[in-house]
Amino acid sequence: MSFLDDLKYDANGLITVVTVDAENGQVLMVAYMNREALTETLSTGFGTYYSRSRREMWRKGETSGHRQKVLELRLDCDLDCVLLRVEQLGGACHTGHYSCFYRKVEDGKLVFTA
Amino acid sequence: MSFLDDLKYDANGLITVVTVDAENGQVLMVAYMNREALTETLSTGFGTYYSRSRREMWRKGETSGHRQKVLELRLDCDLDCVLLRVEQLGGACHTGHYSCFYRKVEDGKLVFTA
Repeated sequence: MSFLDDLKYDANGLITVVTVDAENGQVLMVAYMNREALTETLSTGFGTYYSRSRREMWRKGETSGHRQKVLELRLDCDLDCVLLRVEQLGGACHTGHYSCFYRKVEDGKLVFTA
Repeated sequence: MSFLDDLKYDANGLITVVTVDAENGQVLMVAYMNREALTETLSTGFGTYYSRSRREMWRKGETSGHRQKVLELRLDCDLDCVLLRVEQLGGACHTGHYSCFYRKVEDGKLVFTA
């Protein structure tokens, strides 16, 4: 019996993951894991997700080199969300930005931000 | 035309929201908004979600008093996730904890943490 059995995966077998930079706590990205990706993340110590668009395991940084060394894995009260604290190599976002959250709403419009 | 038209809502009309404490950046909770909740959050300046379990608008803190004054609303690269920076009154979690992420995985087991 593992805590993995207690998690609330959605209808597609996925759980939401929020990944933050362990150095400063900033939110880098939100992605998804299935049980296999979660197991691999725990066993390898590197952020591994499930890509909903490509429908396959997504070893973050495998091609870009922007890997995530996992320092801590938390779960929320409902056991349906993971919080990963990572040491991020390079930018976390596929656009090249440090974080995926590089736009904010200002006066009802989306603007770029630091 | 509003940026709300560009967001990628899921099949249920929802978008994932990560809410962080503006004071220290810590992740407080993950919840969902539909377009109505997002509109209300922007117009009132207080965190308003859509409760998937109760299937209704969820004005965070309406009964508990643990409201969230929104200081910033960001969007991710894919436009399918919101990041809210809030001033959190009281605990964010319905269990009474400051954050919903009060458990971490240690040696393959879930343990309580600060």
